[in-house]
Amino acid sequence: MARINDHYLELKRSYLFTDIAARIKAFQGAHPDARIIRLGIGDVTQPLPPAVIAALHGAVDDMARAETFRGYGPEPGYEFLTELIAAHDYGSRGVRMAPDEIFVSDGGKSDSANIQEIFGPECVVAVTDPIYPVYVDSNVMAGRSGPAGDDGRYAGFVYLPCTAETAFLPALPDRHVDLIYLCYPNNPTGAVMTRDTLARWVDYARREEAVLLYDAAYEGYIREPGIPHSIFEIEGAREVAIEFRSFSKLAGFTGTRCAFTVVPQELQGRAASGERVSLNALWLRRQSTKFNGVPYIVQRGAAAVYTDEGRRQVGKLIDFYMDNARIIREGLEAIGLTVYGGRNAPYLWVKTPGGLSSWDFFARLLNEAHVVGTPGSGFGPSGEGYLRLTAFGSRDQTAEAVDRIKTRLAL
Amino acid sequence: MARINDHYLELKRSYLFTDIAARIKAFQGAHPDARIIRLGIGDVTQPLPPAVIAALHGAVDDMARAETFRGYGPEPGYEFLTELIAAHDYGSRGVRMAPDEIFVSDGGKSDSANIQEIFGPECVVAVTDPIYPVYVDSNVMAGRSGPAGDDGRYAGFVYLPCTAETAFLPALPDRHVDLIYLCYPNNPTGAVMTRDTLARWVDYARREEAVLLYDAAYEGYIREPGIPHSIFEIEGAREVAIEFRSFSKLAGFTGTRCAFTVVPQELQGRAASGERVSLNALWLRRQSTKFNGVPYIVQRGAAAVYTDEGRRQVGKLIDFYMDNARIIREGLEAIGLTVYGGRNAPYLWVKTPGGLSSWDFFARLLNEAHVVGTPGSGFGPSGEGYLRLTAFGSRDQTAEAVDRIKTRLAL
Repeated sequence: MARINDHYLELKRSYLFTDIAARIKAFQGAHPDARIIRLGIGDVTQPLPPAVIAALHGAVDDMARAETFRGYGPEPGYEFLTELIAAHDYGSRGVRMAPDEIFVSDGGKSDSANIQEIFGPECVVAVTDPIYPVYVDSNVMAGRSGPAGDDGRYAGFVYLPCTAETAFLPALPDRHVDLIYLCYPNNPTGAVMTRDTLARWVDYARREEAVLLYDAAYEGYIREPGIPHSIFEIEGAREVAIEFRSFSKLAGFTGTRCAFTVVPQELQGRAASGERVSLNALWLRRQSTKFNGVPYIVQRGAAAVYTDEGRRQVGKLIDFYMDNARIIREGLEAIGLTVYGGRNAPYLWVKTPGGLSSWDFFARLLNEAHVVGTPGSGFGPSGEGYLRLTAFGSRDQTAEAVDRIKTRLAL
Repeated sequence: MARINDHYLELKRSYLFTDIAARIKAFQGAHPDARIIRLGIGDVTQPLPPAVIAALHGAVDDMARAETFRGYGPEPGYEFLTELIAAHDYGSRGVRMAPDEIFVSDGGKSDSANIQEIFGPECVVAVTDPIYPVYVDSNVMAGRSGPAGDDGRYAGFVYLPCTAETAFLPALPDRHVDLIYLCYPNNPTGAVMTRDTLARWVDYARREEAVLLYDAAYEGYIREPGIPHSIFEIEGAREVAIEFRSFSKLAGFTGTRCAFTVVPQELQGRAASGERVSLNALWLRRQSTKFNGVPYIVQRGAAAVYTDEGRRQVGKLIDFYMDNARIIREGLEAIGLTVYGGRNAPYLWVKTPGGLSSWDFFARLLNEAHVVGTPGSGFGPSGEGYLRLTAFGSRDQTAEAVDRIKTRLAL
């Protein structure tokens, strides 16, 4: 019988969202009249911007006529999109980026999960704690983790705790690592990295010849000037970093699927022979062989994000969600809760009151306010004692949830 | 410096399409007035069916209103689509298939490249020769190939030659193998497998406890009654087969990107411990971690293929391409060429005349008729002495190409 990839059996089953669903179901069963509001989910709720809708309709019409029909496109994306990305996301910030360094894809999740395939199995992986689980799981499946310990951590990974004491930023690893996953603005904590802090990571990576896998999926939510939107704003990053970007949270594309990954030409890895190999060339080979490009229609929709109208509409969309974040933060602070994040990110990281565990606070919120959050411990051991709320709800629901928390929660 | 995945360096660089492009460019440079017609390319040219266009527009409108907006969908696809697939592609042929055995994806290429990830590195892979290169390359990248020999074959793979003597069907392997890639109707030869032949493969796989990876991307082109459209029409296949299907060539989705893979619940592999593990569960885990689903809009477009109107329009589209196939076949046979395929497949596999090599015949076609084909040797050593033509062109171009071949080629 064909042997399976045994590393899949090393994956801890994630009970987090299953457990949450089961608890909601039990509560709803016992309280059929309760109107539960979900503030835990990381999905957007507002429709696509009108400029994107118009571009999608236009592209559908292109597909209806032989003269404008598009079949297979270039695997790394149409130039009409990569050129816009190069100009608007990089050029406008003084960052040089060529269209052939930009790989359009169907999602930041896919890219951040697949990128490890171009690296050797012996690479030592560093991850922050708490963390977006895909970085960990994809490396477990590839055999880099070793067994999981009782604390939920894998023996083969280097964990970098992010706690309130360090503003939820990791310390540099105290040993050599090869691959480091960083996500800023951060999911789940909402923390951001200043230019100086990010420069220290670039310096570390240059010294250790490590590769930084930088997930900037939430860069559109940065409000404070001076916070870098791209790791490539840091001098020297082109030799050590890969960046993941996404239209998902920027422009409401979670169900429309478009993202991109940037692999500079200078970035290299080393073969067993000692030969230096371009990671841009390896990623192009990976994408050309195991992927077939993003739908033409969707790429046209993404391109509309860069029009004057699109940029204005996306700005309004983010303003809307960030107003939700402010409403949540101010409401919770008004009753004495400590709230992190939500200033440059759509995520709020709420300290549980009175030393409650993440799950106990989850239960209190559900039982007393009929509001659902996400227990911080689900993102890693250092998330214990926190709860994640998101700013992606509708205004009415967000405001009502905050009002209920303020009036019903017996702190 | 981070170590790369050294297996990427074992990939033979495919010069096929690069070489073709270079030769076309050189010819066009020397003959600027020549109007070259490309009959080699595997991409469709006709617009999407009107029913699909209407569904795409409707879905775009859904994304424009908060009430109907869709964010993240289920990674394996919306039930509105998997239920249609189960009913129309399987139920209507008397094949039981549950929606949770169907995984909607962004392409047959992605799926047939990614499927090997759920298997162990020690699995022995069998491939036909000639072959669609992605099956080979994805296994090279995963480390199953060993080094490439001078004949272009990898030491670690079991090759199954497909020649005119066996109607381009492979013999059963003479040794144990774990994974077998089969593609019928075949790209590039256009051959099909009868029910009896396919049943022998299912028997072999059951006896050897092997897994058949069955690519049925071209099943919509089958004209002869009795030829199976799905491997699951064969008794016992649910325990040994995974099937790949695609809307690309069926309904013109090469640039719209939708496909699906079927992994029955009965199908199992074995862990190092000896434990039997569901391959359906492993593929679900793979897709949930490394993929985020197909755009809602695109899934609505694919669903429209199953409406009465959609089925009629798709039927007409395939009729159109198969008329092209007939025009090519009859035209080439009229001047004494031997042509295989093109009766149940959009591919024609032309025997080169007078013992010409694939590349020499390619050059003759280009120089004398200004028509581009694909040299068969590019698909593997057993493709030497053949040229692939495709039926995906426009009617005018196809007819003119055939006319030129008939009148200008000095055989």
